[in-house]
Amino acid sequence: MSKRASPRSLGLWLGQMPVGTFNDITDVPGVKVGNVSLIKGTGPLVPPGEGPVRTGVTAIIPRPENLYLQPCWAGIEVINGYGKSMGVPFIQEMGFLNCPILLTNTLSVSDVGHGVVTFMLQQNPEIGNDARTSNVVVMECDDSFLNDIRGRHVKPWDALLALQRAGGGPIPQGNVGAGVGMSCYQLKGGIGSSSRLIKCQRGVYTLGMLALANFGQLRDLIISGVPVGELLSVQTVGYIPGSLILIGITDAPLSRWQLKQLARRASLGMARTGSISMTGSGDFCLMVSTSPFENHHYLSDWQLDDFFRAVVEATAESIWNALFLAETMEGRKGNIRHALPIEKTLQLIRNWKGGRV
Amino acid sequence: MSKRASPRSLGLWLGQMPVGTFNDITDVPGVKVGNVSLIKGTGPLVPPGEGPVRTGVTAIIPRPENLYLQPCWAGIEVINGYGKSMGVPFIQEMGFLNCPILLTNTLSVSDVGHGVVTFMLQQNPEIGNDARTSNVVVMECDDSFLNDIRGRHVKPWDALLALQRAGGGPIPQGNVGAGVGMSCYQLKGGIGSSSRLIKCQRGVYTLGMLALANFGQLRDLIISGVPVGELLSVQTVGYIPGSLILIGITDAPLSRWQLKQLARRASLGMARTGSISMTGSGDFCLMVSTSPFENHHYLSDWQLDDFFRAVVEATAESIWNALFLAETMEGRKGNIRHALPIEKTLQLIRNWKGGRV
Amino acid sequence: MSKRASPRSLGLWLGQMPVGTFNDITDVPGVKVGNVSLIKGTGPLVPPGEGPVRTGVTAIIPRPENLYLQPCWAGIEVINGYGKSMGVPFIQEMGFLNCPILLTNTLSVSDVGHGVVTFMLQQNPEIGNDARTSNVVVMECDDSFLNDIRGRHVKPWDALLALQRAGGGPIPQGNVGAGVGMSCYQLKGGIGSSSRLIKCQRGVYTLGMLALANFGQLRDLIISGVPVGELLSVQTVGYIPGSLILIGITDAPLSRWQLKQLARRASLGMARTGSISMTGSGDFCLMVSTSPFENHHYLSDWQLDDFFRAVVEATAESIWNALFLAETMEGRKGNIRHALPIEKTLQLIRNWKGGRV
Amino acid sequence: MSKRASPRSLGLWLGQMPVGTFNDITDVPGVKVGNVSLIKGTGPLVPPGEGPVRTGVTAIIPRPENLYLQPCWAGIEVINGYGKSMGVPFIQEMGFLNCPILLTNTLSVSDVGHGVVTFMLQQNPEIGNDARTSNVVVMECDDSFLNDIRGRHVKPWDALLALQRAGGGPIPQGNVGAGVGMSCYQLKGGIGSSSRLIKCQRGVYTLGMLALANFGQLRDLIISGVPVGELLSVQTVGYIPGSLILIGITDAPLSRWQLKQLARRASLGMARTGSISMTGSGDFCLMVSTSPFENHHYLSDWQLDDFFRAVVEATAESIWNALFLAETMEGRKGNIRHALPIEKTLQLIRNWKGGRV
Repeated sequence: MSKRASPRSLGLWLGQMPVGTFNDITDVPGVKVGNVSLIKGTGPLVPPGEGPVRTGVTAIIPRPENLYLQPCWAGIEVINGYGKSMGVPFIQEMGFLNCPILLTNTLSVSDVGHGVVTFMLQQNPEIGNDARTSNVVVMECDDSFLNDIRGRHVKPWDALLALQRAGGGPIPQGNVGAGVGMSCYQLKGGIGSSSRLIKCQRGVYTLGMLALANFGQLRDLIISGVPVGELLSVQTVGYIPGSLILIGITDAPLSRWQLKQLARRASLGMARTGSISMTGSGDFCLMVSTSPFENHHYLSDWQLDDFFRAVVEATAESIWNALFLAETMEGRKGNIRHALPIEKTLQLIRNWKGGRV
Repeated sequence: MSKRASPRSLGLWLGQMPVGTFNDITDVPGVKVGNVSLIKGTGPLVPPGEGPVRTGVTAIIPRPENLYLQPCWAGIEVINGYGKSMGVPFIQEMGFLNCPILLTNTLSVSDVGHGVVTFMLQQNPEIGNDARTSNVVVMECDDSFLNDIRGRHVKPWDALLALQRAGGGPIPQGNVGAGVGMSCYQLKGGIGSSSRLIKCQRGVYTLGMLALANFGQLRDLIISGVPVGELLSVQTVGYIPGSLILIGITDAPLSRWQLKQLARRASLGMARTGSISMTGSGDFCLMVSTSPFENHHYLSDWQLDDFFRAVVEATAESIWNALFLAETMEGRKGNIRHALPIEKTLQLIRNWKGGRV
Repeated sequence: MSKRASPRSLGLWLGQMPVGTFNDITDVPGVKVGNVSLIKGTGPLVPPGEGPVRTGVTAIIPRPENLYLQPCWAGIEVINGYGKSMGVPFIQEMGFLNCPILLTNTLSVSDVGHGVVTFMLQQNPEIGNDARTSNVVVMECDDSFLNDIRGRHVKPWDALLALQRAGGGPIPQGNVGAGVGMSCYQLKGGIGSSSRLIKCQRGVYTLGMLALANFGQLRDLIISGVPVGELLSVQTVGYIPGSLILIGITDAPLSRWQLKQLARRASLGMARTGSISMTGSGDFCLMVSTSPFENHHYLSDWQLDDFFRAVVEATAESIWNALFLAETMEGRKGNIRHALPIEKTLQLIRNWKGGRV
Repeated sequence: MSKRASPRSLGLWLGQMPVGTFNDITDVPGVKVGNVSLIKGTGPLVPPGEGPVRTGVTAIIPRPENLYLQPCWAGIEVINGYGKSMGVPFIQEMGFLNCPILLTNTLSVSDVGHGVVTFMLQQNPEIGNDARTSNVVVMECDDSFLNDIRGRHVKPWDALLALQRAGGGPIPQGNVGAGVGMSCYQLKGGIGSSSRLIKCQRGVYTLGMLALANFGQLRDLIISGVPVGELLSVQTVGYIPGSLILIGITDAPLSRWQLKQLARRASLGMARTGSISMTGSGDFCLMVSTSPFENHHYLSDWQLDDFFRAVVEATAESIWNALFLAETMEGRKGNIRHALPIEKTLQLIRNWKGGRV
């Protein structure tokens, strides 16, 4: 297995803007990420639901304060609604997030949701006791190519454990947490992240993206502008329509209206990797600001362009990071997802002339 | 406790259109409804989570065939997105329903969702085994005024049981299934249903609505055009922002586009009961056609007006049915929701002159 | 012709909330309304386009300051998009209004739009000269039942004249401005307006609505809760799918997000008059705040319920005002729209018992 | 001035799919495009509104039949709503197009709209005479960098002339019709078009895109994956937030629901050229099917991926075509938009190694 390295460390062009310390979502002050990775068994599917297990949970906590009491402004864009995520309509209506964000596989949404409810009830004794309930946000992709998804191996306590483990960066990427069993462009996908710094008159802000990348066919893959997917001679099998979950967080004082506009730009970053948002791909972007809820001194709409650029660049780089950092994995029924062949990819990029020019 | 009776049996004007045999959602051929009602304990809240329990599950199965293999066209309207329902974005994107519809309390969405996944996996061994997952639709209202919602008394098997029990009409209304602990206009709410017949050139179609009514303040209640809520001298306490879930089903051959247009009209029926769709009220309408998925000989857009009228009338009557048929209930911490005082209400209506005219 | 009077002056119940001085949209400080009414000719349609003319323009200026330089936060709800209004997507995207609001007939949108551009260019020499253009908002209904709409009798200068004439209240209602030739519930419709006062901790705010009412079939008309349309023995002919334009203005400090939520509630008011939002009815609500653009100290989301109630009540009353105040008119090809028979209507309301109760 | 050539003729990689005969929107059988180009005067802005004139009109007629009587199914995606186009809400609500599509500059929308109404009234004597009005679709970009936009040089008869001139392909691109005065990535933009062939079981379908390209800053320009905008040493001045209008037409039998899904993919193509959809850029995609309105035998949702791919590829190529084919132009106040330097661009692409790799 070749050594994994990020496209940035390899010198690929990934945009114009400066990146944060770790080039990941935890560059935004206060953001914590935690993972539970479940990897167990090999070979044929063992009934009943004994594996092989290739799945997990990723928890993202935008800021340290109790989110139920101090929500974050948030916006969401449903790029392609073919997904089974929980908690979307509430954010579309109210524009704020009052719970942590959890990622997992499609059939485990309810189990992880159960865990989040437990977390919220423990933290907030007033919920359901003359106080309103919180929203629950669990987003998902289908990892059934590698994972015994029918086994529903993720349990509510895995959600609690992921939340408990959540910490600062740099964060692990690739085959980790919810990303363990994910496929992207018929190669091994998973968790990827990236960040950008945005300079305004009012200061320097950070925007970080985290992708759970599990979509696409190899033929469409573009890296750094080169149609690598067409050129690679990797043999691919087993396309299952996947999905892409994008979580963006910034410390800039942006309103919910503006955050929704930022979230809309995520598809432009996704497109740079070659996505055509196929039928069956549930592509969502949730964008959150950690700026205090009561602070209404938002940036002007005319200062958003650099944030849009940051969303586009960090989204594309997050997806590429997932591909470059994930390792080959064998799973359910002996299915294999190969890691992106980095050396070969770099060669293709170096030798590419833009076509027949 | 006064005897409960529907407003139609009492002679109130409820619209122009003819109703089906049972005047409920099961008038649409093939529709089945099942309930699990959980009522246990009285008096103060007993830790840990021992009650009083006033909650349940309602299952709605639009047609007998395996929904995963033979989905129904569907449309959804998020009237007010302050809700925590599962399964909304998928229907918004794809316009079809490939699973049964479950209703329950807010904090039990995950548990009921778990049950639905179990149901779908049992029924369809191919799911997650080289076949796509189905969507899961669980819609909810907050019954915490009467119910020990933190106790999470609804279990996955209650969802399975509700599905198993599902049968034809006439269906019980009021304090049943998910409606057990619900409040509406600070009176006792719950499940209500109504139907309408629509005559077209191509035949007579049926449209049925089912409401899980759990919203509003008494002051806003309007019945049959009379501001009953202002005139009633019932003492009300404990407003908790509630919600309204509306499920509509028709056997008419309507496209997903048209079903979405039908779903949009539900708010017009809700308005006839006085709703102002308060902040905190998650008001959703899901509209389904049982006409075969492959049949694309839809009605013309210019034949929809009678369906719109049917949606408006049956929505309002469903909500009123919930109010007229639900009985007074005592629950959590001794909280009481009084049933709508029918005799008094009829008097107010009879004596009303439209104001000072 | 019977004397016209508003339902409020006649003592009908029109909601719970207090109204402003004039009970119209000009109760909001700074709001100005201007009309150009075009009434010419009678009898058969005279080619080419010589009439009879029954149309006009209504201009609404939310505040005295130059709107291009000092826009207003705004939100829009497309209740039923079957309409040909200009300027909707810009407000949906940006959430502000930077031009006056003009109303006219469907085929004159371009002509009035031309006039608004002239107005904006005159007022702002920098537009198109290294400064951005403004949006243009012209909303419309189809008055072709009474008006020779093909004659396109509204000219760009009529828009300019309506803007120039704009002044404070009380404003004329019924057959005036854009309302001259409009039909509502197959009776004479037109311009109607109403207002409500909202008390908050931070003070008393005003919300005013103005309706251009041109929709519906008589059979659906409800007044003060009574199905007057079914009971009236007025002979009606010539249903042409119409539309409803609703303009709301408030001086409360509400964000664009919140204004959109207010605009969503307009359909609930429309419903109280019996509307089912028929196919072919372009129903829009534009909601504007005159609070300074830079003031971001918005009310809390939990203070919006009284505003929602105000929108619902003032919307319904605006439509009823149009019906009660418009007078019978004869127009194109001798078509006649009768005014709502007030005395008969009041009798029906007084004698109504809510059905067979 | 260097000779202009399309990127395809120069050998650049532009996607995987085969293109139609002319590689433009007229490859779709029956589609006609017509232009009126207005170019007059040079040097300083001559009051009052005498120029320099650098603007025009482009008319697109999806099929030969009377569109009012035989509409086309259509879907629209508002990628970025900062635009002043007419006719959007109607298509969003009803999903069909019953008029031709006109493109022009922002301040001439009303004038062109007036011309379209004239066209529709002449063609259909029943409109407004007991028959419903048609929608009017006029889409726009702001060409004020080069054009005396305040002069409003486009007249209603220019719209009629463009409609009259409409014919088959191959069509002129670059500085033509509405594209005459447009800027793209601070270079000369304008009209561009491209097409793709899609093979299905049911036959081969064509999808054509036409772009009115007038957006972006040079720094963001990407061509064939290479960040040309960063690398070019062209001096750019005068960024004015522009817009992008995309018109897609296909002969495939797709429903309005599916056409909306196709329209959503246009942003993914736009992204390949480097767009970040800046604030102030009104980016719209209108997608139309020429398949008979009554034919409801639509393709399955699972056959759409090739159409999505076609939209993405043809959108990007349309924008690049506008850049490669437009010629340098001098306009208002001596402002100059330089054509993309093709030779230099090709060199940059050939020498690019994907970064520091």
